[in-house]
Amino acid sequence: MNRYRVKPGEHIKLKEWDAGQAHGCDGGKAEGRQRLADLGTELAHLQELLYAEHKHKVLIVLQAMDTGGKDGTIRDVFHGVNPQGVKVASFKGPTPFELDRDYLWRVHLKVPAKGEMTIFNRSHYEDVLIARVHKLVPKEVWSRRFEHINAFEQMLADEGTVIRKFYLHIDLEEQKARIQSRLDDSKKHWKFNAADLEERKLWSDYMKAYEDVLEKTSTEWAPWYIVPANRKWYRNLVVAEVLVKTLKNLDMAFPKPAFDPSTYRVD
Amino acid sequence: MNRYRVKPGEHIKLKEWDAGQAHGCDGGKAEGRQRLADLGTELAHLQELLYAEHKHKVLIVLQAMDTGGKDGTIRDVFHGVNPQGVKVASFKGPTPFELDRDYLWRVHLKVPAKGEMTIFNRSHYEDVLIARVHKLVPKEVWSRRFEHINAFEQMLADEGTVIRKFYLHIDLEEQKARIQSRLDDSKKHWKFNAADLEERKLWSDYMKAYEDVLEKTSTEWAPWYIVPANRKWYRNLVVAEVLVKTLKNLDMAFPKPAFDPSTYRVD
Repeated sequence: MNRYRVKPGEHIKLKEWDAGQAHGCDGGKAEGRQRLADLGTELAHLQELLYAEHKHKVLIVLQAMDTGGKDGTIRDVFHGVNPQGVKVASFKGPTPFELDRDYLWRVHLKVPAKGEMTIFNRSHYEDVLIARVHKLVPKEVWSRRFEHINAFEQMLADEGTVIRKFYLHIDLEEQKARIQSRLDDSKKHWKFNAADLEERKLWSDYMKAYEDVLEKTSTEWAPWYIVPANRKWYRNLVVAEVLVKTLKNLDMAFPKPAFDPSTYRVD
Repeated sequence: MNRYRVKPGEHIKLKEWDAGQAHGCDGGKAEGRQRLADLGTELAHLQELLYAEHKHKVLIVLQAMDTGGKDGTIRDVFHGVNPQGVKVASFKGPTPFELDRDYLWRVHLKVPAKGEMTIFNRSHYEDVLIARVHKLVPKEVWSRRFEHINAFEQMLADEGTVIRKFYLHIDLEEQKARIQSRLDDSKKHWKFNAADLEERKLWSDYMKAYEDVLEKTSTEWAPWYIVPANRKWYRNLVVAEVLVKTLKNLDMAFPKPAFDPSTYRVD
């Protein structure tokens, strides 16, 4: 999955990234779903190890355009893990309380503790995406934030946090179909938001902002992956594979007992 | 009071800083107390402006050796301000919950909001002081933290926080007298902690650690002041003067009303 990892400083043109591809999975959806099921089993095991070892912290950042699949990815990739050790933090529009503080305040509050895996459904990146596109702060302010964010993530990494960031990449046509299905299917009506239609008009501004994010904040310690996300099953597969590989590389082990089990007798 | 401000990168030898001096205050204690009273009035006014304007955030960091006067400074300098807009955050030994997170987590949680003035009684600097002297983490870990801290404070400053940091400088003799008075005076017994005697043996290690802090983390956006603190009245004066000058420089004003007062009639 290294083909989707953005190298530090790599210049990104999202138009050149095929959102519909399914590289390495010639068997299509059926193969993809079987592989995802296997990865889910591995992920559940690795998450239990993470929790038991109580050493590493794991932070997963999900960003996407509206309908890009953040909610679906969380459901499909993480549904098999123990929710006791996995937290989801969703960052919607900031509250007045949050706006009185720096933009990293509410984010830092929610970072994973030792043994935890935390998924950010949107994140501090909104502060250089929507804040930029909608001019919520002047350029002078948002342009400084790339450096803050890299330093913040480096601190987290230095202090024991493993960070993986996923941009779920869909194209304009796919978004059209997904929004339309939220209008056509009564079970999806609750997901429809008329504001998405307005945001959609700003697509190219958002792409430009995402390209800057990917170029400036993909680091050795907190890399971005551009996940082809037009096909949901492939999107899930990519995220799951990256996570399983990342967790395996931690070489985790159940902690050695501080006692001799043979000296205890349970009556 | 610029003589006490540490220039970025300035090499500091604390032995060469006279903890007993009272420069610029030839009238001694009596003059000092009068000036402090006047400054207290100004500070109370400026704090109300800060609160009303709801724009800037003010962070004051106090660090010192045991008995150095952190608690006394808070009482003597801030007793006249409205506690609604002033918060004190005291950082004692981290709890298990805090230890499961990065060392800046609990600190970031307590930073001031717009219109607030927050005083840190000890701070994230303990993570490069006691953590270093007592080898709570290896050098590889604490030595990286200077850079984290500068980046963290720069982010806060960029996002509207005014930061001033005070190292209350007493010498070894003065500490001896102060600990002894905690043994001799029954009203001070509650402040005596036998552990302070052990910490005292590590004085030179702490001085070395403080010198590094002062040299590496005094920045344009978050300067350190080395406050001569053997004389409590002078210590108070220095801290109060720096704060009053800092707040005055913000050019604050009561916000213009969004209404025309003359159009309302209160029956």
